[in-house]
Amino acid sequence: MDDSKLKARIEEASVARLATVDASGKPHVVPICFAVDGDTLYFAVDAKPKRTTDLKRLRNIAANPAVSVLVDHYEDDWSRLWWVRVDGAARVVADSDEAARATSLLVSRYAQYRDARPAGPVVAISIARMSGWSPA
Amino acid sequence: MDDSKLKARIEEASVARLATVDASGKPHVVPICFAVDGDTLYFAVDAKPKRTTDLKRLRNIAANPAVSVLVDHYEDDWSRLWWVRVDGAARVVADSDEAARATSLLVSRYAQYRDARPAGPVVAISIARMSGWSPA
Repeated sequence: MDDSKLKARIEEASVARLATVDASGKPHVVPICFAVDGDTLYFAVDAKPKRTTDLKRLRNIAANPAVSVLVDHYEDDWSRLWWVRVDGAARVVADSDEAARATSLLVSRYAQYRDARPAGPVVAISIARMSGWSPA
Repeated sequence: MDDSKLKARIEEASVARLATVDASGKPHVVPICFAVDGDTLYFAVDAKPKRTTDLKRLRNIAANPAVSVLVDHYEDDWSRLWWVRVDGAARVVADSDEAARATSLLVSRYAQYRDARPAGPVVAISIARMSGWSPA
């Protein structure tokens, strides 16, 4: 798959899985809702109920910005499986204009965010590499 | 969710996402098919076409056994979302009896494996911790 096909598959997906690494080298993986703007993938800490420990994703990014994000398709017909992975560096968005723009992108992708606009920090992942797999 | 509920959700799922960490501290995430036996989660390198780089999951485990495995449910109704995560230590199964038992478990869970029994290494993840989230 070329980069435009990889990106199309990412942009068609509603959920991805974010892997981060903590200061001791242990991985952590959570689902995220996201939006892509050029070579940047954004997600936000949103209003879905969180316990404090769920912010581990932010602590991990502060300790180690390297992240890996997976979008995949599963079905019983294994000839139709595929996945796309984005590897890159994450940072909490400090610029309020960028955060507002990213939040608007998220709201435009997810109807659910229209009633509960994400209020938490926005994270930007600079896409360093996209890779993909399918059996074909 | 208590541990029995967490484990039931894992066992009902067909696909999980495995996060590993390489020697330089970068995360890597791929989908896996899996089976659970007591406190151990197994997956195998199977016959789905792989390029050499896909064995990165095994190189990572050799460098750093800490892994994180996620099972999640996504739908447009966000009141019905949930995820379950397993954190633990992974090892390539060296004992041939254990590998055969794990492969049989995988074959019994996945009809697709009956025609193409996984021939590659089997990986065992000792479940150190299960955690879960749902909005309810």
